[in-house]
Amino acid sequence: MLPASLVPPSFDPGSVWLVGAGPGDPGLLTLWALHALEQADVVFHDALVPEEILSLAVKARLEPVGKRARGLRTPQLRINQRLIAQSRAGARVVRLKGGDPLIFGRGGEEALALAAAGIPFRIVPGVSAGIGGTAAASIPLTHRNVARSVAFATGHGSSGELADIDWAAFSRGAEVLVLYMAGRRLGEIAARLIEAGRDPNQPVALIRDATRPEQTVVVTTLAEAGAHPASASPTLIVAGPAVALRAQLAAWQQTAPMAVIPTHRQALGLG
Amino acid sequence: MLPASLVPPSFDPGSVWLVGAGPGDPGLLTLWALHALEQADVVFHDALVPEEILSLAVKARLEPVGKRARGLRTPQLRINQRLIAQSRAGARVVRLKGGDPLIFGRGGEEALALAAAGIPFRIVPGVSAGIGGTAAASIPLTHRNVARSVAFATGHGSSGELADIDWAAFSRGAEVLVLYMAGRRLGEIAARLIEAGRDPNQPVALIRDATRPEQTVVVTTLAEAGAHPASASPTLIVAGPAVALRAQLAAWQQTAPMAVIPTHRQALGLG
Repeated sequence: MLPASLVPPSFDPGSVWLVGAGPGDPGLLTLWALHALEQADVVFHDALVPEEILSLAVKARLEPVGKRARGLRTPQLRINQRLIAQSRAGARVVRLKGGDPLIFGRGGEEALALAAAGIPFRIVPGVSAGIGGTAAASIPLTHRNVARSVAFATGHGSSGELADIDWAAFSRGAEVLVLYMAGRRLGEIAARLIEAGRDPNQPVALIRDATRPEQTVVVTTLAEAGAHPASASPTLIVAGPAVALRAQLAAWQQTAPMAVIPTHRQALGLG
Repeated sequence: MLPASLVPPSFDPGSVWLVGAGPGDPGLLTLWALHALEQADVVFHDALVPEEILSLAVKARLEPVGKRARGLRTPQLRINQRLIAQSRAGARVVRLKGGDPLIFGRGGEEALALAAAGIPFRIVPGVSAGIGGTAAASIPLTHRNVARSVAFATGHGSSGELADIDWAAFSRGAEVLVLYMAGRRLGEIAARLIEAGRDPNQPVALIRDATRPEQTVVVTTLAEAGAHPASASPTLIVAGPAVALRAQLAAWQQTAPMAVIPTHRQALGLG
């Protein structure tokens, strides 16, 4: 389904592709990701990957392994074992993750397990939520003369605890900060950044469900951010002067995601 | 040329799309980017965007505006004016940049100029070189238990001068550092990071022409990095413990880029 002029190297049976699905808009899939989904025999996917994207895996068996799939969490070791077993059985295996597989995505652990087992793999980078999600919110992260550096971290760990990073050093390390998975610890994160010397009036954006039709963007300040309700939705916090540019840009920016007609899988009785 | 089940909103005449082309491998284009190129009437492109990617703009007039195009540099103000003039003339205008348009890409300036002129625009994020290029070099930037934060900056400005950032704060701000456009100031950058307290034995990767067939990756240390020759090629510096994982991964990782058969434009006499 790629243009005829594009010739991807083949996706060999017995290999595993670790694929980034991007932040949610199906149009942010890469050509590699589309090819991987179309060719896959089995797709192990996170709970955050939207249905429309999964529907592009026209002939694959879908196995949810995300933390929120069916309320259960598949341990990382078990995921690694499943990837290895399926590839040894001769399948074309896709491990599909939201965003990019190596940016807070644990793809490195899977790649190490595959290499140790002698299984060839490909890493298919994706548009990371911190980049694609901020673009959809009209925030040019490294706007000239406003920010020459940007830093990314996670706001909290998998159990919801505040991330174990050096908050003071992180806060001073770059002009713009982007925190992934930050919805549950909003107030504490804002407090740490103010403690580290950031201006309490610095603009902050809270971006939920970035690049999805239900995306919301709230612009506030560091001092006020803690007053916003915590949320379990995927939430990005962006702190820095670039956030203020949204006010000039958003009215003229087109952000509708790409639509997917859910044809193939349903027709095949797979969807 | 997209799969029939994908329905992109239309690319209206009189609008401008600011499009990230990714780090070089045509397979890292997003579906949005492919759609933009296929529909465009005119494409203003950086010098760094490879020919194979430009060849996907099957019916567009191509205008190089990159700094290295024909040895000249098109001033940013002039680029803004050309985007506005072409869209007012009713064209579907693409501004195509390497990597992501808002990560050290000056897309924010173009978006502001378009908004001020009342011209609708779309921002099409791309895989940033710091993410896609490090993945192709088998470096999982935020590998669990190794790095919980990553920071990006440019190594030097457009005239080659060392970037005007707070090097000490930047160095301490995240466990992994990625510097774009770093080839010309390798020794000074390494010296600044050591001065800031980074271990001189910390592993460093120098990645040139990331995701291109001619990609090279050199692994060294901060202390030794300065001994490597400066280069005007697009160079990423990655400093941090995650670099060491490359030794375990690279032998099993498939990295061949997606090939493009240069058909359409040549057949039409445009290529």
